[in-house]
Amino acid sequence: MLIIMNPSAGADEIAAVLRAARDEGLHPRLAVRDGATVIACAPSQRAARLGGLTGVRRVEAIATPYVLASRAFQAGDTVVRVGSVEVGAEELVLMAGPCVVESSAELELVAPALRAAGARVLGGGALKPRASPYALLGLCPEGLEPLGDVGSRHGLPIVSEVMDPSEVAAMAERVDLLQVGAHNMQNFELLKALGQQRHPVMLRRGPSATIEEWLLAAEYILAGGNTGVILCEEGIRTFERATRNTLDLSAVAVVKAASHLPVIVDPSHAVGRRAYVGAMARAAVAAGADGLFIEVHPDPGRALCDGAQALRPTDLERLGADLAVIAGAVGRRFPGPAPTTERTSGRGACGPFGIRSLI
Amino acid sequence: MLIIMNPSAGADEIAAVLRAARDEGLHPRLAVRDGATVIACAPSQRAARLGGLTGVRRVEAIATPYVLASRAFQAGDTVVRVGSVEVGAEELVLMAGPCVVESSAELELVAPALRAAGARVLGGGALKPRASPYALLGLCPEGLEPLGDVGSRHGLPIVSEVMDPSEVAAMAERVDLLQVGAHNMQNFELLKALGQQRHPVMLRRGPSATIEEWLLAAEYILAGGNTGVILCEEGIRTFERATRNTLDLSAVAVVKAASHLPVIVDPSHAVGRRAYVGAMARAAVAAGADGLFIEVHPDPGRALCDGAQALRPTDLERLGADLAVIAGAVGRRFPGPAPTTERTSGRGACGPFGIRSLI
Amino acid sequence: MLIIMNPSAGADEIAAVLRAARDEGLHPRLAVRDGATVIACAPSQRAARLGGLTGVRRVEAIATPYVLASRAFQAGDTVVRVGSVEVGAEELVLMAGPCVVESSAELELVAPALRAAGARVLGGGALKPRASPYALLGLCPEGLEPLGDVGSRHGLPIVSEVMDPSEVAAMAERVDLLQVGAHNMQNFELLKALGQQRHPVMLRRGPSATIEEWLLAAEYILAGGNTGVILCEEGIRTFERATRNTLDLSAVAVVKAASHLPVIVDPSHAVGRRAYVGAMARAAVAAGADGLFIEVHPDPGRALCDGAQALRPTDLERLGADLAVIAGAVGRRFPGPAPTTERTSGRGACGPFGIRSLI
Amino acid sequence: MLIIMNPSAGADEIAAVLRAARDEGLHPRLAVRDGATVIACAPSQRAARLGGLTGVRRVEAIATPYVLASRAFQAGDTVVRVGSVEVGAEELVLMAGPCVVESSAELELVAPALRAAGARVLGGGALKPRASPYALLGLCPEGLEPLGDVGSRHGLPIVSEVMDPSEVAAMAERVDLLQVGAHNMQNFELLKALGQQRHPVMLRRGPSATIEEWLLAAEYILAGGNTGVILCEEGIRTFERATRNTLDLSAVAVVKAASHLPVIVDPSHAVGRRAYVGAMARAAVAAGADGLFIEVHPDPGRALCDGAQALRPTDLERLGADLAVIAGAVGRRFPGPAPTTERTSGRGACGPFGIRSLI
Repeated sequence: MLIIMNPSAGADEIAAVLRAARDEGLHPRLAVRDGATVIACAPSQRAARLGGLTGVRRVEAIATPYVLASRAFQAGDTVVRVGSVEVGAEELVLMAGPCVVESSAELELVAPALRAAGARVLGGGALKPRASPYALLGLCPEGLEPLGDVGSRHGLPIVSEVMDPSEVAAMAERVDLLQVGAHNMQNFELLKALGQQRHPVMLRRGPSATIEEWLLAAEYILAGGNTGVILCEEGIRTFERATRNTLDLSAVAVVKAASHLPVIVDPSHAVGRRAYVGAMARAAVAAGADGLFIEVHPDPGRALCDGAQALRPTDLERLGADLAVIAGAVGRRFPGPAPTTERTSGRGACGPFGIRSLI
Repeated sequence: MLIIMNPSAGADEIAAVLRAARDEGLHPRLAVRDGATVIACAPSQRAARLGGLTGVRRVEAIATPYVLASRAFQAGDTVVRVGSVEVGAEELVLMAGPCVVESSAELELVAPALRAAGARVLGGGALKPRASPYALLGLCPEGLEPLGDVGSRHGLPIVSEVMDPSEVAAMAERVDLLQVGAHNMQNFELLKALGQQRHPVMLRRGPSATIEEWLLAAEYILAGGNTGVILCEEGIRTFERATRNTLDLSAVAVVKAASHLPVIVDPSHAVGRRAYVGAMARAAVAAGADGLFIEVHPDPGRALCDGAQALRPTDLERLGADLAVIAGAVGRRFPGPAPTTERTSGRGACGPFGIRSLI
Repeated sequence: MLIIMNPSAGADEIAAVLRAARDEGLHPRLAVRDGATVIACAPSQRAARLGGLTGVRRVEAIATPYVLASRAFQAGDTVVRVGSVEVGAEELVLMAGPCVVESSAELELVAPALRAAGARVLGGGALKPRASPYALLGLCPEGLEPLGDVGSRHGLPIVSEVMDPSEVAAMAERVDLLQVGAHNMQNFELLKALGQQRHPVMLRRGPSATIEEWLLAAEYILAGGNTGVILCEEGIRTFERATRNTLDLSAVAVVKAASHLPVIVDPSHAVGRRAYVGAMARAAVAAGADGLFIEVHPDPGRALCDGAQALRPTDLERLGADLAVIAGAVGRRFPGPAPTTERTSGRGACGPFGIRSLI
Repeated sequence: MLIIMNPSAGADEIAAVLRAARDEGLHPRLAVRDGATVIACAPSQRAARLGGLTGVRRVEAIATPYVLASRAFQAGDTVVRVGSVEVGAEELVLMAGPCVVESSAELELVAPALRAAGARVLGGGALKPRASPYALLGLCPEGLEPLGDVGSRHGLPIVSEVMDPSEVAAMAERVDLLQVGAHNMQNFELLKALGQQRHPVMLRRGPSATIEEWLLAAEYILAGGNTGVILCEEGIRTFERATRNTLDLSAVAVVKAASHLPVIVDPSHAVGRRAYVGAMARAAVAAGADGLFIEVHPDPGRALCDGAQALRPTDLERLGADLAVIAGAVGRRFPGPAPTTERTSGRGACGPFGIRSLI
């Protein structure tokens, strides 16, 4: 449900409605739409009753269990700024990098190729969470240093994973986009912590999460007041084993219809084999994705982690050309090589990120 | 395993090797590759021993459990002829039609639009098998009559489903392409009957079939001597319910790498909702599919069956334009409107279908 | 929907109602309940309208898409007779045998142990359908001969699989219970053929079939007039690979609540490893199954097929003792060793099977 | 791999081996087996090389990716003490309580019935994590107070969920058993925090976790030095929707074969409907589970959460009688009503928990 306040409603009236909603067990969350104060809350007939309170303009029923993430709440697309890059706008955003940061030297080898291929965001794990405690990988916290340095030098905002609510603030100072890993998609404490701050978040879909649960996880972040959420599809767990997971590209179509949030696709993690990454990247763009996350390694055969799925930098450049044509067929643009003169001053200089239409 | 005979090997030598393989329990199947007689059989060290028999040139190990369907058996793509249409060649093939044939009038309404959109094959169920005995649909056997008549009049070969081994021969006289429904993918008696004849077959993937099982089902048909097999992906059953099934587009990439058989995609049955069909059709072409099967109905709101997923004829025309651009980006062509002068004389006149390279 | 006729309704009145229902597209099926003629048909408001026809007592709404298989149609449990054995009564029925019949000698070794363990039905495949055409197993049609002979000699009715509608009649003369394999659960032509005759049928659940689809498949057989349907759960396909499939024991509880049909469990095929068969057999009885199907082989290490999951005869005897205790805890009985004097005259002498309450 | 040190090895020798293993990237973890120091580490040929270091007795290859959780590491069953209760011993342990604690009064109503039914642990959520931010339930942190008070008064140790690494220490002072919810099974930061302390942990299986991943999650806790891990199966996510999840009882058999850790089953969350809970509880005991977790509510129709799956206290008492018989059939005991004189002094008095054989 969505309780829309009158523009003239005062702080005490808003507070009174919030209190009433809380008393009804509706878990109200304050948000802003088109400049007006709104209160999202649980679907319930009790919410309708609050329509009579002073300052309430009307109560809107929302058909989905998520409210702020829905197209019913916001018809237009959300555009999330990641450093100098916009995700969800006409131009598709390619994020790329190694599974786990191994060294500055390796990143320096990769970065120019990423730019040449049209990539605009540099990704990489500092410490890669793994199913086994004996398989941990990464150089944390040092891994973030090379990522930040190389990103800064090459004008590429950076994305990396945050795993613990207590680390959110520190990570937010060091990366442009905070990533929630698939296994943490329903780590609600982490989602709440991410909602309490204003850095953009890329929320990967859990391998057994329904699309509805995924959007509800996004709602946790939005409900905290952070409107910068990017969704990332990376495959769901099925009986098929020819690929690591089954890339659910229809999820892109479903999300674009149901939500205003941008959604990107990570074909590398989904299929787990280099040979299939290109086809799935092309398909993702054709399906309407707002961007891609692709693993790249200068020498996949020697990668510490997931080398079998990493593209070589030259593969990525070739792929970029295909993507540009397909993007055109679906009314989007895929950027060409980043101009070498382009140079953001890095994370430090990234202004406060902003969502165009939501707050 | 594959036992390759010398070109000079006589019928009695071939018979002797077959007998020996049968005695070893290897279930040998005679086939032809590049003009030479070969014998496909079970992977087994016992097959290697047959290398010493007279007339045997060499024994080739095949890494996959399917032999005749593998790229190791045949490196080049198989092209299957359906009436006057080639499936698996450079030009993508769009098959389209209603879920179940309701009347000649309805088909007549749809056929010109199909041609205009670039469709080259007309599909439709005569009797639609359904999970419930109270939900059967169709006018069988009369349904095939209108399908054949309208196809003939508009120069569109037709495809329809065969369900019983005993009906294969009669159906083959009436349709250009015999379809095996997803729920029958492992109806081995049906597969064997289809292998014993020479009409091309479109084999839909079962909702819980692995890609390997799907290719093994194709192998049943190929092993009977019928080389005209087209695969059709229509989604797998997963936990996600926002779509009917989960369209597994990575299966297209996997099949194209592992097999020489053409593979098409049916987004309509996979997603079950019109709104997502276009995006998935575009994605399928980008993923490398050899064609599409799309449900179309002149008035989806009044369709007897699956109206929610059927496109309107005008939707299909618009989609065709997008597909042409994407096809170009992946080195394929999507045909424009069929010339109105084109006119095959229908099924009767369809020459014997042939596979380019396999027999 | 269920249309209940007056006891006094004449044949012409029944025919008129059937005709009217057919005209409404309701796919009506004649059945008998408590001696009264009833007509099962599709759920539809049009069915309600037929309540005004002469001879109709009332029209009953059935909440489930299956009608004849539901508890709403028949509250009491159906008991299916297989030769001299009752399935679905207080006494649990153990069916056992090899995956595929290898020889009379092997069966002779196994049969006494089965009797000693409390088994009452002898099962075995004549020809085992396999995913690969190179992996076929069996001696068909000779395999049925030893099965019949040994069953006859040891007083054990026999069960084997039928795969083709055209073979139903011949098989029905040779086995006491016709089995539909999991991959054929939605082979509707086969289901219809089995509904047209009066031999009992064991319907295995397809690996990706929902419980509702499984009961609808049973409905196909019931709707043809054959009331002797036994369900068999053998696991569903999931992401877990530690077992072949995931045995869904909650399906037993769901089926027993929703349907009057007996349901047995095959732990051997579900788990695929001997070490887990005993635990799952015990759990199945505790869950309320009406019986078990367990693979047994005199020398599992040398079995042609699925030896890894077959119990040794001595394992089965030990298991029988546990089952007896658990059966007691859930209000059932597990039979002790079959008396050596027991001797049915075999299939030939099996009277017409009968369902206690349904017709 | 497992590096076994000589009993005489000194602290410096152990430190040197640890250092060498760390340098090899093997992520070594110190543990104790039968009084001897051992070092678990990644499976690798590099580990074998460490066999030559001073103080190393031998290096043992472990076939599974988990080491400390495997039967190869410890053949005998682990028994975990939860307050005064032993989990994993001959006597089965029934844990029960409401989904979420609503009030002291409600718990007081339930507690005597639990004792009468044979339950030995009281469970309940203080704050129930939910997929939607608008559906949160619970009175946290006050919820733990009534749970602790009522548990103490009735001599029942308590179990409740911990969600954030930063809350582990505070929770450990208030509950006897720390629970990891299914959605947090791969929240590795939480697992590590739980490994660093000595309170026992119940690790619920994630809905899409393989058994191997579940045991690897347990390994994270064990590898930190906390040997008190209880596994809890509560169903996996499949395509079937007649039950909330599909209870995977074969997982019990697989875990008992592969691991020494106790495993209990929660049928309530798995099936989601009261009508099926009893059958699944019986089946779990027959399958070899070490205990059960069952939801109970004094008035399920008015429960704040999951009332549809909660048993009434009287249902639980009846169920207890069945469980006792089945337990006997599988060589276990199910406790009768707890003697009213029994009275632990509550959490405060729970001595340091201990695992019999591991450390």
